[in-house]
Amino acid sequence: MTDTEASSTKAGSRNAGIREVARQAGVSIATVSRVFNNAEVVNSETRERIVALASSLGYEPSALGRNLVRGRSYLIGLIVPNVSFPLYGAMIHGIEDVLGRHGMSVLLASSHDAAATEVRAAQNILRHAVDGGIVINSIVGDALPTQRQLGWVHVTPEPAGLPCRVELDNEEGGRLAALELLRTGRQHFAYVGAKGRESADRERGFALTLRKMGFDYRRFEGDYSEESGMRASAELLAGPLDGVFAAGDLMAAGVLRALHARGIKIPDQVAVVGFDDAAIAPLLYPRLTSIRQPAYAMGASAAELSLNLMSGRHNAPIIFPPELVARESTGPPQASF
Amino acid sequence: MTDTEASSTKAGSRNAGIREVARQAGVSIATVSRVFNNAEVVNSETRERIVALASSLGYEPSALGRNLVRGRSYLIGLIVPNVSFPLYGAMIHGIEDVLGRHGMSVLLASSHDAAATEVRAAQNILRHAVDGGIVINSIVGDALPTQRQLGWVHVTPEPAGLPCRVELDNEEGGRLAALELLRTGRQHFAYVGAKGRESADRERGFALTLRKMGFDYRRFEGDYSEESGMRASAELLAGPLDGVFAAGDLMAAGVLRALHARGIKIPDQVAVVGFDDAAIAPLLYPRLTSIRQPAYAMGASAAELSLNLMSGRHNAPIIFPPELVARESTGPPQASF
Repeated sequence: MTDTEASSTKAGSRNAGIREVARQAGVSIATVSRVFNNAEVVNSETRERIVALASSLGYEPSALGRNLVRGRSYLIGLIVPNVSFPLYGAMIHGIEDVLGRHGMSVLLASSHDAAATEVRAAQNILRHAVDGGIVINSIVGDALPTQRQLGWVHVTPEPAGLPCRVELDNEEGGRLAALELLRTGRQHFAYVGAKGRESADRERGFALTLRKMGFDYRRFEGDYSEESGMRASAELLAGPLDGVFAAGDLMAAGVLRALHARGIKIPDQVAVVGFDDAAIAPLLYPRLTSIRQPAYAMGASAAELSLNLMSGRHNAPIIFPPELVARESTGPPQASF
Repeated sequence: MTDTEASSTKAGSRNAGIREVARQAGVSIATVSRVFNNAEVVNSETRERIVALASSLGYEPSALGRNLVRGRSYLIGLIVPNVSFPLYGAMIHGIEDVLGRHGMSVLLASSHDAAATEVRAAQNILRHAVDGGIVINSIVGDALPTQRQLGWVHVTPEPAGLPCRVELDNEEGGRLAALELLRTGRQHFAYVGAKGRESADRERGFALTLRKMGFDYRRFEGDYSEESGMRASAELLAGPLDGVFAAGDLMAAGVLRALHARGIKIPDQVAVVGFDDAAIAPLLYPRLTSIRQPAYAMGASAAELSLNLMSGRHNAPIIFPPELVARESTGPPQASF
């Protein structure tokens, strides 16, 4: 805030007052005030004449006027697939905290996981002359509309072609899930994944770790929904099964529910590990062991990258390690291992 | 969008081009462009001279400039306790959809349930010359900072002193919960509430409905946390109990967990009703019957009230009825009733 205040004081010393604007425009002070307080009662010719005169006299009537003089909006655009997904909520919290410390605010737009909506959101944000932009899980990637000097910072699982980004080490997450199932003595493994690079990376880490220990696994492709987790359980229980890693907490919730429906004890007979550690994980029954994305820290980093871009610095991608949060669904180590 | 585009065309007809601004300022076109594209290479005296000249010539160089001339920012400030609470996510969705249809964007700030943070969020929003403001579950209520012609629209359970608001009929929610427990043949009731007016209104509806049918109930004061729901169960199970209404889904989750821990069957032995119907309700085990707040519609209404306020119209408060969403935790009607 200090440099902002300093420049405000400097600019202020050469400003005319509202009195002077009113005198030169030949209108009352009340009229000038109405113009800059957005009243509809001043006709548009008078309004434009007063605005132009005020500006030429250096009168700073509003935040918009001040920003125009400084050439900055103090706004960062943020595009999120869906604000109600808890993981994104934590990211937004991190973004707001860092930007707030720099006197900047968040202009929010949701893409609702649709490419056309995401592009419209970006265009809308650009109309507000933002100083920077952050996009979480972009669908269109580097095809996102931009304008001169504005670089989007991506929080993304799809790094191809995006130089400025924050991402999770998904392969490491798969490794942690395998180690937790191995630690609790499991021998018959399954992976419940989904389409896309995120799931492929999680599966690679899971597979490599199991194979190093001499184990194989079966796989089911879901779609991150609870229902697909239930279908996965139904299919996988046709064979021997005592350790399941689901690539998302919602799919893990479906796995738990299908196991309950068959009277299978968790974790005694089957252990389950989820992914994300979203708000639901500790509320499931039993409480779900999950691989945590450090969402707050990832958001904070994205905001810092955006501030760096604004001052012309470029950044290497930042890759965050996930973390195992062990709860009841995997249970204590088994004696058999 | 049509009226926006129309006024843009009208204003455009009397605007000077960048060439004219450069000629009169005695600088190159590239310099004018750099000024309005926020480059740091132009010294601040030259910058301010060019901005003032451009404005007096009617040159519209950027969104900020256009907004200054029109006297509107096309921004609505939004203060939310916590974006990651799913109920607020749905409200934000409703707000964004309505504002988007009017070419307006959301300037987001979180209060994190702290009065000082909420006030700072409001001040920050006002610095951006927003056209309106919406605040969800305000802590400071009508003490929120404002500026001339800006009225905050409150989405709130605490209506005292707030003329422009959207709220839920919490008493009706309590009535629906009682009816659902009565419908499934329960006779030994408990209310798990919390401090504040929301819980008091829910309890009143619950109490009146039960008493009309000749039933009494016991009560426990929690704090909307899962843990307080677990404590409630432990205490309430000291007496006869077969129907619980918890004033929030998280407390209901705690009630379910404590019942599981004691081997009590849900809904056969005890039925449970939650409140909010947040995203977690259908994921709990068993799936939780809950009283739904129509969060999307409430957000959409708040946005419409805000647009009304901007055009000088005032509004009566809008009160939304909640809705019962029956799931496994109350079960089918019992023959005994």
